[in-house]
Amino acid sequence: MNIQKINELKEWLNEQKIPLAYISNPQSIAYLTGYHSDPHERVLALFISLDQEPFLFTPALEVEAAKKSPWNQDVVGYLDTEEPFKIIAKEILLRYGSPQICALEKAALSVDRYEELTSYFPNTAFTSDISPFMQQMQLIKTPNEISGLLEAGSWADVAFEVGFSAIQAGISEQEIVAEIEYQLKRKGVSQMSFDTMVLTGSRAADPHGTPNQTRLVDHSFVLFDLGVVWNGYCSDATRTVAYKEPTAFQEEIYALVLKAQLAAQEAVKPGITASQLDKVARDVIEDAGYGSYFNHRLGHGIGTSVHEFPSIVEGNDLVIKEGMCFSIEPGIYIPNQVGVRIEDCVYVTKDGCLPFTKTTKELTIIGG
Amino acid sequence: MNIQKINELKEWLNEQKIPLAYISNPQSIAYLTGYHSDPHERVLALFISLDQEPFLFTPALEVEAAKKSPWNQDVVGYLDTEEPFKIIAKEILLRYGSPQICALEKAALSVDRYEELTSYFPNTAFTSDISPFMQQMQLIKTPNEISGLLEAGSWADVAFEVGFSAIQAGISEQEIVAEIEYQLKRKGVSQMSFDTMVLTGSRAADPHGTPNQTRLVDHSFVLFDLGVVWNGYCSDATRTVAYKEPTAFQEEIYALVLKAQLAAQEAVKPGITASQLDKVARDVIEDAGYGSYFNHRLGHGIGTSVHEFPSIVEGNDLVIKEGMCFSIEPGIYIPNQVGVRIEDCVYVTKDGCLPFTKTTKELTIIGG
Repeated sequence: MNIQKINELKEWLNEQKIPLAYISNPQSIAYLTGYHSDPHERVLALFISLDQEPFLFTPALEVEAAKKSPWNQDVVGYLDTEEPFKIIAKEILLRYGSPQICALEKAALSVDRYEELTSYFPNTAFTSDISPFMQQMQLIKTPNEISGLLEAGSWADVAFEVGFSAIQAGISEQEIVAEIEYQLKRKGVSQMSFDTMVLTGSRAADPHGTPNQTRLVDHSFVLFDLGVVWNGYCSDATRTVAYKEPTAFQEEIYALVLKAQLAAQEAVKPGITASQLDKVARDVIEDAGYGSYFNHRLGHGIGTSVHEFPSIVEGNDLVIKEGMCFSIEPGIYIPNQVGVRIEDCVYVTKDGCLPFTKTTKELTIIGG
Repeated sequence: MNIQKINELKEWLNEQKIPLAYISNPQSIAYLTGYHSDPHERVLALFISLDQEPFLFTPALEVEAAKKSPWNQDVVGYLDTEEPFKIIAKEILLRYGSPQICALEKAALSVDRYEELTSYFPNTAFTSDISPFMQQMQLIKTPNEISGLLEAGSWADVAFEVGFSAIQAGISEQEIVAEIEYQLKRKGVSQMSFDTMVLTGSRAADPHGTPNQTRLVDHSFVLFDLGVVWNGYCSDATRTVAYKEPTAFQEEIYALVLKAQLAAQEAVKPGITASQLDKVARDVIEDAGYGSYFNHRLGHGIGTSVHEFPSIVEGNDLVIKEGMCFSIEPGIYIPNQVGVRIEDCVYVTKDGCLPFTKTTKELTIIGG
């Protein structure tokens, strides 16, 4: 369990004069307790009291695993036949009485559960949202966390290597995905951080496309967007490579995206804002006349989840600080023609940034 | 798009005198529109009006994909730099005015989004929860849906075949998982319905365990819990096989779980309740003295999501009807000793049920 972060949370409760916090996001719970679990439709909850002992609430069939986890405080279980919020309410009353205020993770609590919980506590105010604080708390990564992210990043590099090696005449997108995930699983990576994306040719012009049985043809780009979860930390990186000699147009688009990616990566340092970073990359692409084909933000934070704060986007005046970790992933997507994205996640240092992934970004031509 | 189901939804709105519904669950949206998308932290929404045209709301970079999908009505997009609920509010006002009531999927809407949306409509009541109706609507599967589930089930059978073939001295759980997912991906199955579970020996006694590098030893059970998503429909099945001759105790536990599974599967027919079905299986295990080791519900519904209604659990008086589809998955988990689960998902027929998976449930001994 992360005592330092739990104490930070308690300090926040103290400042806000809030006696109790209900943490409902499984990822926040993992971050604070060291207990990783996807409860699916069941209820997983962590209650942190300002001045009493906390407790973790899990489905009965998870209690043993929770007790074996780094969390060494109370664990309360519930059976499928029981009403979870009835038990939660009983436990809260027993342990903490009827709190005046209970902070919630409003971004990670459904309205029906909110209504159920609040029905048991007519005299408690549930107005305070702890989500922004939880996000803020995870913004600056510790050196240990950065080590974890570097390890996750090096697995993404392994994945690229496997993927590039799999490229051959006529192979399908799905076959390449299968090869990458197979080799990584065999090496002990149990989880990808999201569905591995391999898109070929003009199909890469859909920034959220899904790999299918489309087979590789000569002179097309292959876009790889992938990452793993390793010891609770995520990686996420994108490379676009050419299969056989690319056309001059493909090369032009690639060079432009690379220029934008490198410009933004070089601009990262404490003091710049998220919005300014986005603009650095966007200006490169806009100046070349392709601005409308770069239709998403520059990047997103990364840590124990693959998408977290900060959002590197126009209008976000958040000031970048040492220890923040995020993706820099410009792209140009020209429908029915070409799609290129290049992405590294980086961590901010004292005077710049360093990437978690090391695979070359120079245009790689395979089978040339 | 599923016009029949959209019309059923409109009938419900009409009965309830509700002019507008906000569908926020991506799975419900896929079910109604035919557009499958995981929006991650972005906003995906479907607004169904009682008497005006509906509209789908997606991130800008998904608009093209949504327009290419079976959904042939309006699609509205938003950029990462825009406030999604500001645009949603504008669209609602423009199209439908200020509705007196707007029904919500309260089980699939976060409190922060709820507060944001409702802040734009001070005169609209957001009290009505459409989640139970959406669940109810999907309870009875059409013959087409059952065909889809049968296809998904047959892929689970292929997965078992691959998994059983992979079993050999010293192979690790993760290597078996890798083999299964690799072969399926190569055959064109792009998505498993959940993380494939392969647990060996006493590790199978954790009903929610995670495969790791543990290597297979002689005379141990291997538990496979797996499924795929195929054309939007899910499969989910569990088999436990023995590697080399099992002990008498392992055989006893296996026989008991099988007896419970078959008893429940034979008891399924229209008219019985979910609670009664759970009891049929539980009685078998309790009568043999292992009741406390069967610590989860008997089953869950299956369809376009891998866990949906009905819940086959004590206390659920829902009457089973023809066309319902759910899992029957008793298990016995004796910590540090043995874990066995056997699961088929079935669809209810006029006078019984039929399984989606056909792999034998008789104890299979591999390498014997």
